[in-house]
Amino acid sequence: MAVDLEKANNMRRVAFLLVAVLGLSGSAARIASASGEAAGKPASISSASPIYGVTIPPGYRDWQLIAVNHLQIGKLDQLRAQLGNEKAYKAFKEGKASFPDGAIIAALHWTRVPSEENDKALAVEFPGAQSFVIGPGVNIQIMVKDSKKYAASGGWGFGDFRDGKPGDEALTKTCFPCHQSATHDFVFAHYAPAP
Amino acid sequence: MAVDLEKANNMRRVAFLLVAVLGLSGSAARIASASGEAAGKPASISSASPIYGVTIPPGYRDWQLIAVNHLQIGKLDQLRAQLGNEKAYKAFKEGKASFPDGAIIAALHWTRVPSEENDKALAVEFPGAQSFVIGPGVNIQIMVKDSKKYAASGGWGFGDFRDGKPGDEALTKTCFPCHQSATHDFVFAHYAPAP
Repeated sequence: MAVDLEKANNMRRVAFLLVAVLGLSGSAARIASASGEAAGKPASISSASPIYGVTIPPGYRDWQLIAVNHLQIGKLDQLRAQLGNEKAYKAFKEGKASFPDGAIIAALHWTRVPSEENDKALAVEFPGAQSFVIGPGVNIQIMVKDSKKYAASGGWGFGDFRDGKPGDEALTKTCFPCHQSATHDFVFAHYAPAP
Repeated sequence: MAVDLEKANNMRRVAFLLVAVLGLSGSAARIASASGEAAGKPASISSASPIYGVTIPPGYRDWQLIAVNHLQIGKLDQLRAQLGNEKAYKAFKEGKASFPDGAIIAALHWTRVPSEENDKALAVEFPGAQSFVIGPGVNIQIMVKDSKKYAASGGWGFGDFRDGKPGDEALTKTCFPCHQSATHDFVFAHYAPAP
């Protein structure tokens, strides 16, 4: 039993690292969830992230686009978009060195999948999988700027949500150490200029 | 001289196909431009697309996000985002089978490049190129819905712009035949639901 618990804890640790640092993987999330259940812990019913108390901002899907990116590590393969509320978007667009209090950034992560519809249109000249679109949603990561409330973490509060539920404390603890290496006020995303 | 002209015309034909059907390549664009010059044609000074008279809509970069995708064909490698004006975004979000007059969709295409900054953050656990972000802009494609004005092309007017300049008639002619195979009112993009 002790061995099982240790094993479960190790699995959780690996899963958190994958989910938090890398962004990703539904499979890592499932491992974390399964091992949480194995350890006999009840599912969290709070809608706020541990440590920071960050929640999913209403209407965030309608926010403006900061940038898009693609993450591919072995079987982990995601298309991602970062959206910003008005304060965040304005700061990005104007190239501000840091973000004002109240700025919120939402990172939307989906599994990347081939598009049969698009490939069919291309197939006349180029057969095979060429066009990739978003598949199942993986998670949403939220960053909220409040230089006083979150002074200990560069002025940012963090939350990582799957199916609307926040990750636990061990996961949430990994957010800030990773974002410390970002060059733009702890934010990895850079504004995508109009082509 | 006749042979040179024929050669130039063939190059243009190949370039148009690549640019229009595939969405892309800066190199294909440069071929098209170079061969146009070779044929002694002056650069177009119109800001409107041939055939349809579509222009780049002011403020389109601030529009809401419909979806993101990735196109990779040999050396062509692009991250893409589709944005919609209010009418287009609403129709997408509400799952309408077709789009109302006045709906405009802007497809933004950038070359996909590795992110040194992001890879550095990941390198502790996963060395190598894992994170890809947008690089140089390639082109913008605009679709405008006007069921009367564009009745002959499914109700849509098209424009393909590089560096703010519309592609020529031969390029623009390829838009509608390709979009005829799209399953959603001649539109390839599908709304990306919140993860």
